[in-house]
Amino acid sequence: MAPRKQQEIFDATLWMVAEKGYDGLTVEGVAERSGVNKTTIYRWWPSKAALLGAALVESDVLGFETPDTGSFRGDLVALVEQIVRLLTEPPGSDIAVTALAAAVRHPELDARRFFADRFARERVIFERAARRGELSASADPLLIVDLLAGAVWIRAVFRGLPLPEGYAEKAVSVLLDGL
Amino acid sequence: MAPRKQQEIFDATLWMVAEKGYDGLTVEGVAERSGVNKTTIYRWWPSKAALLGAALVESDVLGFETPDTGSFRGDLVALVEQIVRLLTEPPGSDIAVTALAAAVRHPELDARRFFADRFARERVIFERAARRGELSASADPLLIVDLLAGAVWIRAVFRGLPLPEGYAEKAVSVLLDGL
Repeated sequence: MAPRKQQEIFDATLWMVAEKGYDGLTVEGVAERSGVNKTTIYRWWPSKAALLGAALVESDVLGFETPDTGSFRGDLVALVEQIVRLLTEPPGSDIAVTALAAAVRHPELDARRFFADRFARERVIFERAARRGELSASADPLLIVDLLAGAVWIRAVFRGLPLPEGYAEKAVSVLLDGL
Repeated sequence: MAPRKQQEIFDATLWMVAEKGYDGLTVEGVAERSGVNKTTIYRWWPSKAALLGAALVESDVLGFETPDTGSFRGDLVALVEQIVRLLTEPPGSDIAVTALAAAVRHPELDARRFFADRFARERVIFERAARRGELSASADPLLIVDLLAGAVWIRAVFRGLPLPEGYAEKAVSVLLDGL
């Protein structure tokens, strides 16, 4: 399939999830919106869960740029700010929050792939910090990413609380400087 | 309603969510299992979301004991271990993960109340630590709880990775000792 057509199918999938929720997402609806035959979509992705899982990783909409600010602290703050935007700024946040919550009950949706793909790019922050001597050899990058991303998820999604000015700096400071 | 009857209704609600997911939860099913008339349930809780929200907070099944180990570090480690059990040991984990994920799309379910109720009890850990001089005045208890609980959620639920031996100690050490 042409990459541009594929991107249109992914866009239609993510738009439909943001609008109608996971239960409202249908391959028929995606086919209609993207002008692609339903059977063509099924040939590439065997279920709506598989389609949404692929769209999450491959669409430009939730694109992730590895921050490169020149310091470990700056990179982590920029990382948290990206996660805050991902989980609080529509329409991206409607897509991300709905799809990730749905993945809990629909393993075919494969949120693991989304997280693994992101982590492959987040990891670069830690490799650079280690080369600059800003990170001890015993530091666990996956744990650090999970602490920061998890705090944003709990506060923004589960508690429904706003993320105050300076939140990213404060969260990163707890990790870098200790309590 | 008699507290014991109410507890039976909550038990039936949580059992049904764990078995059938949020979409499979019905007030009819809860009524049948708990031997209570459907209209009685609706008189107390206007929707299945409201019923599940109340059950999450008030049932004994997801009960939360504030740890009291004698040290701030010990209390935080025990807190993380409780969260790990809540999110990884069935049947409690099926209930908690399914209900919290469903709350994202069903605000009437009111996960905020579940988290606020837990935080009221978690807060005691920080008050004790402050009295013992183990916690600086600028520390933010809500941020600390969100970092720790969030890390467990991302790893166990979204990444589907096991929580290795010593995970709680390691996560707490990042916060208390810095990177």
